[in-house]
Amino acid sequence: MKTISTAKSHGGVQGVYSHASEACACDMTFAVFVPPQAKDGPCPVVWYLSGLTCTHQNVMDKGEYRRLAAEFGLIVVCPDTSPRGESVPDEKDNWQFGCGAGFYLDATQAPFSTNYRMYSYITEELPALIAKEFPADMTRQAIFGHSMGGHGALTIALKDPERFKSCSAFAPITRPMVAGWSRPAFEKYLGTDEAAWRAYDAVALIEDGKRFPEFLVDQGSADGFLEDGLRPWLLDEACKAAGIPLKLNMREGYDHSYFFISTFMDDHLRWHAERLAK
Amino acid sequence: MKTISTAKSHGGVQGVYSHASEACACDMTFAVFVPPQAKDGPCPVVWYLSGLTCTHQNVMDKGEYRRLAAEFGLIVVCPDTSPRGESVPDEKDNWQFGCGAGFYLDATQAPFSTNYRMYSYITEELPALIAKEFPADMTRQAIFGHSMGGHGALTIALKDPERFKSCSAFAPITRPMVAGWSRPAFEKYLGTDEAAWRAYDAVALIEDGKRFPEFLVDQGSADGFLEDGLRPWLLDEACKAAGIPLKLNMREGYDHSYFFISTFMDDHLRWHAERLAK
Repeated sequence: MKTISTAKSHGGVQGVYSHASEACACDMTFAVFVPPQAKDGPCPVVWYLSGLTCTHQNVMDKGEYRRLAAEFGLIVVCPDTSPRGESVPDEKDNWQFGCGAGFYLDATQAPFSTNYRMYSYITEELPALIAKEFPADMTRQAIFGHSMGGHGALTIALKDPERFKSCSAFAPITRPMVAGWSRPAFEKYLGTDEAAWRAYDAVALIEDGKRFPEFLVDQGSADGFLEDGLRPWLLDEACKAAGIPLKLNMREGYDHSYFFISTFMDDHLRWHAERLAK
Repeated sequence: MKTISTAKSHGGVQGVYSHASEACACDMTFAVFVPPQAKDGPCPVVWYLSGLTCTHQNVMDKGEYRRLAAEFGLIVVCPDTSPRGESVPDEKDNWQFGCGAGFYLDATQAPFSTNYRMYSYITEELPALIAKEFPADMTRQAIFGHSMGGHGALTIALKDPERFKSCSAFAPITRPMVAGWSRPAFEKYLGTDEAAWRAYDAVALIEDGKRFPEFLVDQGSADGFLEDGLRPWLLDEACKAAGIPLKLNMREGYDHSYFFISTFMDDHLRWHAERLAK
């Protein structure tokens, strides 16, 4: 692991790091905030998965998570959203596919299956690195994210409920199998057999029997992606049918940006801190 | 005035606007946060002046000011740091002069005197526009800033103490007349007669009899610009000699970045809110 930068912030350290990823067959960059409490012992780990077009940097710059992470003693890990590099296949003019759009899945289709293995990266490789390199208590993990990253958080938590004490999302893509901006990506990454897509769709996972204790979701009512891309009511219906408590907050007048995310960041960090403390 | 963008945030509205500036003879862009309290009547105005290389956007993205501005009911205005545009003379490879480096002064030397009039812009033109276009209580204003913008805040407050209820700075350039990164700019903007520079130097202004009720300054001890560029001890000495209370907080391990600024943003907003409430 290589340290790209570190800066003291809110009594802790905001760092940016890179490493040669085996899962993604390229160098990967990620951000980690280590709170001041890490001096006294391992701290719980909160994973934040970012949305389409983002890198580790967007939430690090604009997410406003450090004040409460420092107060609650949370390590916050912010991975990139896809493999990157000259050898990584991409569609340069398509922001909904390729670099910046890994959708937190393991691609099975050539030429994408070599690098686009964000599911393995987030669930296996990066946790092992975090456990090795940071003062992390891996028995206490939480996960959240935004948009495509909300999809990532929900699906990863549903498939591994033992790993996470809590899960939440800002404006998640609840049904990527059928949403206009993710269907073409799923086909290219996973092939045309939609049965294989269900492992990366929160609503389908719940329909297929996966469970998580409870979810928190915040969604802006003025979000331009609400009707076609996000549709939190589909998650609401699936959770109701499955008996999963979902706290879904529709936020009047808020859009899809970090101005929205940063407004409700405190609520989400409190949600996770309470559950990580148990 | 043209609205470039607006987004709801922390119950208020973060907007970006532009207008044809007479003072700077070019279009100027600025950011304004209007808190939710503005629905019930005019709100006090806090001016944030940014540092070298910045636009209105850096603090808007990374300053983390909206949560407490919304709590305290403060309008926060974040201007650009210089004139910009194809007709504006610049030194493209010099980040310490020209675009992004207006130093909050009125240039007197050709070819810079046509556009580089940030002092008039910040003290006259933009306040008039804010008063006209926003629900602003112009009888209650405060000013702060970072680095070059800290210099701007200190010097503008010292020359117009009646306008501002309070003034603070993050890592301000306290003595730009003699600092390595500002001396060449002062010479190009103001000419070789250093007597004319004293109107834009906080320490010189205090030596020359200008006064302000009190200052708050936060400075990181790991700031790479501390020794040559910033030197808060010079301000401390000048304030002591003049009987101006200066609360100077040296912050162990913090650098010059927004990771530092955002850490202490709350303290500064509280400082201003308390004084604006009087």
